[in-house]
Amino acid sequence: MDVQVVNCMTCEEFVRVFGNVVERCPLIAAALWSRRPFSSTLELENGFNEFIDSLSIEGKEGILRCHPDLAGRELLAGTLTVESRGEQGQAGLTSLSSADALRMNQLNSQYKEQFGFPFVICARMSDKDRILQQLESRVRNQQLQELQCDIEEVKSICRLRLQDIYNRAAKSTKL
Amino acid sequence: MDVQVVNCMTCEEFVRVFGNVVERCPLIAAALWSRRPFSSTLELENGFNEFIDSLSIEGKEGILRCHPDLAGRELLAGTLTVESRGEQGQAGLTSLSSADALRMNQLNSQYKEQFGFPFVICARMSDKDRILQQLESRVRNQQLQELQCDIEEVKSICRLRLQDIYNRAAKSTKL
Repeated sequence: MDVQVVNCMTCEEFVRVFGNVVERCPLIAAALWSRRPFSSTLELENGFNEFIDSLSIEGKEGILRCHPDLAGRELLAGTLTVESRGEQGQAGLTSLSSADALRMNQLNSQYKEQFGFPFVICARMSDKDRILQQLESRVRNQQLQELQCDIEEVKSICRLRLQDIYNRAAKSTKL
Repeated sequence: MDVQVVNCMTCEEFVRVFGNVVERCPLIAAALWSRRPFSSTLELENGFNEFIDSLSIEGKEGILRCHPDLAGRELLAGTLTVESRGEQGQAGLTSLSSADALRMNQLNSQYKEQFGFPFVICARMSDKDRILQQLESRVRNQQLQELQCDIEEVKSICRLRLQDIYNRAAKSTKL
């Protein structure tokens, strides 16, 4: 997607296209529309990162709490966002054995109990074994260290979601 | 709803109950969970206001851009949130004459063109004549003055949505 296409979007179009780059936080994309024109798509990506970094600790925790559990209730209920469903599928979380599913649920609960926000990881850059290992290890982190760790994962998710949007746009232009 | 009930909610419950107090901005409710325990429901309401006030100008504009047009495309398409649908209905916006609907659409477009965010008003404290009159008059405001005006309307909407939540909880306790 050419950055000029992005710069020509109305705010409704922009929020429709980029509204879930940060999971269930359309407010962030909607805020970034104020920064047009962007000189490059990288500048838009940086905008997401900067906005996230500019939030207070509770604001960052709020972002994390808008994320679903991995292999959790929402996956079973079919209420995940399209993006999240795809990402959890790619990491093999939609076809866990009962034992792995149980283990992940226990660790997710323990993690949320510990920190007050869900465990977030860029699932597409991982797989179920690494996710289980990360859950087991990160639950021992300090509160602020773990908040920052989760927020960096949110940024990785953002980057891949933006790439998907650009790739889809490039494909549809070629058709 | 007793504030102790609020204080006992998990973050998932809290976001489910309060996630749309600010239209399509569950991030804000999710952030406020960090402030528990609340000493009163008023403190929770103040929390919403403080969080909104703490955002940058682009963040506040982002909140506004998550709001639908009044009597706009989303009302016709049936994609409004439950809360928004109810509020627009109470203000008589679901049964406008064609002439009023056309006028409101023209003014909404003009307003968005002018300010880069949609016109927001607490519809339940208004009616279609006042809304049309406000649209006509506020479009002549200065940018920052109008941003602040819209944000104060968002806070009024929040307050009434919180009251609704408490009233519903009180009723269901009595059943």
